Amino acid sequence: IYVPFVLDSFFLPTERMVRPDPGNVAVVSQSGGILVDNMVKFKEEGVGLSLGVSIGNKALIREIDLLRYLQEDPSTRVIVFYIEGFEEGEGRDFALAGSDSKKPVVVIKSGKTTAGTRAVLSHTASLAGDYQIFSTAMAQMGIVEAQNELELISFCESLSSYQTPIEATVGIISGSGGHGAMAVDVCSAHGFHVPRLNAEQQELIRKDLSESIRNIASLENPIDLTGSAVDEDFVCAARHISTIAEIGCVILLLLPYLPGITSDLGARLSNIYQEVGKPLIAYVPHVEKFRMLIEGFELNGVPVSHSIEAAVLMAEALKRRKSS
Amino acid sequence: IYVPFVLDSFFLPTERMVRPDPGNVAVVSQSGGILVDNMVKFKEEGVGLSLGVSIGNKALIREIDLLRYLQEDPSTRVIVFYIEGFEEGEGRDFALAGSDSKKPVVVIKSGKTTAGTRAVLSHTASLAGDYQIFSTAMAQMGIVEAQNELELISFCESLSSYQTPIEATVGIISGSGGHGAMAVDVCSAHGFHVPRLNAEQQELIRKDLSESIRNIASLENPIDLTGSAVDEDFVCAARHISTIAEIGCVILLLLPYLPGITSDLGARLSNIYQEVGKPLIAYVPHVEKFRMLIEGFELNGVPVSHSIEAAVLMAEALKRRKSS
Repeated sequence: IYVPFVLDSFFLPTERMVRPDPGNVAVVSQSGGILVDNMVKFKEEGVGLSLGVSIGNKALIREIDLLRYLQEDPSTRVIVFYIEGFEEGEGRDFALAGSDSKKPVVVIKSGKTTAGTRAVLSHTASLAGDYQIFSTAMAQMGIVEAQNELELISFCESLSSYQTPIEATVGIISGSGGHGAMAVDVCSAHGFHVPRLNAEQQELIRKDLSESIRNIASLENPIDLTGSAVDEDFVCAARHISTIAEIGCVILLLLPYLPGITSDLGARLSNIYQEVGKPLIAYVPHVEKFRMLIEGFELNGVPVSHSIEAAVLMAEALKRRKSS
Repeated sequence: IYVPFVLDSFFLPTERMVRPDPGNVAVVSQSGGILVDNMVKFKEEGVGLSLGVSIGNKALIREIDLLRYLQEDPSTRVIVFYIEGFEEGEGRDFALAGSDSKKPVVVIKSGKTTAGTRAVLSHTASLAGDYQIFSTAMAQMGIVEAQNELELISFCESLSSYQTPIEATVGIISGSGGHGAMAVDVCSAHGFHVPRLNAEQQELIRKDLSESIRNIASLENPIDLTGSAVDEDFVCAARHISTIAEIGCVILLLLPYLPGITSDLGARLSNIYQEVGKPLIAYVPHVEKFRMLIEGFELNGVPVSHSIEAAVLMAEALKRRKSS
């Protein structure tokens, strides 16, 4: 069990560990190793933890007990489970309880394949069960299943910030045409529509842009402000696109290499979310010297991904909430 | 153009950039933004660069020119292209030249979907073409297509170390049963077989293990040495499994939290690769305090991934070489 600043019952050497900051995500794991490893990734991605529990072979406590407990825990907003297997009937009860959860429930399963099932059996002696049935049941019950670690961390980071479901339409703002194009492809692969802005919407944005980019920026969506954009251009584009009703969320691809943008931009763009209420998701390379830009977002409640894929996965988590 | 220590013709402020170390991967990109961003990721992942070139809208130079040039470049072992589109006939020539390449060629494409094609058109005015045809042609020609950034960086890191094709069978060694189980699932999803070791093979490993884990380690493959394993146990398991002919490569899931392992383990395990010649792929969380463990591998030519998925993608790159 690990509760930031309160309790740490891991038996691992403290100097070897990496601990996330206090936050609102609770992680319940059938594997202590997976829990510890996720804690590193939570720390790296700036996702805070309310509680971390390894339940091992469930001799003492089961997922459903913690699911019920965490429903009432005021410091928890997102509940995550790493699951190896269920006893007979146990999975059914868990799925039903998960479907009643007011807080987002995220699961990741191992033992998906014959070989994986063998590995699970030798680890916690769990019955991994039929994975297709598990996966279908989770989806039907509105429980968000992560297929891998990247999805898991992205879903947690996103749902830690936003709990309201969104429509599957995205606005994309970038300072690099290549990033915009790649993001559109990933969005499409995840079933997101990237609607083309009409002439009137484009004109509203264009008239507020810096003179130097006004005639070279591409504003159809993805919006490519070009490498000559300055802070005000990103703020202007983000503000306009955030107010378009049919845009479910806005993905900002922020390349800190651009000479015209400053480290203040994260905080400034987060203000738009605070004002308009449209979920923003940022991509900023996770490098120490860009930390101020990253924290400008994160400390103001806007999640920051470390890749274009992860940004789209963050949007995916909000879209999945819809079906619950 | 960027050649480490020799030439840097980017027009971006130097203090904003992150530059990879010199190495053997050449990156040719239709987008300067994507190139710069990949350079950050290369640096973070410890992949070295021999050359980075942005060719933009190809007014001066095309992919095929650089593909030919890089065939002869002694400092380049892996050739990477970010592609938005080809002129008529250009893609055909590129695919044919790629199939003749002695060095691994990795491509990533944007403009895969209708919306992505629109984005590409507004960026470099390229004709994105029919993505299915592109993708099929690349596969037929033995060119390794990365679907996303995670695949791209993983493929590059792996092919930067190993160029010999492998069979699609994997040995997995871990100190956490959960990690072993998750890795098996990811391997299966990528078409890898994780063969169960027979009683004789298991016995060979078991008799060399520390007394404290001899009776609790699970040796079927995935090998779970448990959290009580020490350096010698990892070395012993890695040595034995590396000599099994039907194992194509070995994935080591190294959790630096385990009290019994030291930072020397990376260098020690790399020796096994140097002796036996079986490709090793390590997973170590990319945290600064584990840097010695990571560099013990990387400086000895063993790639280190930052996630289980990325480790399996590194194996995938070697498997794909087979079909070329």
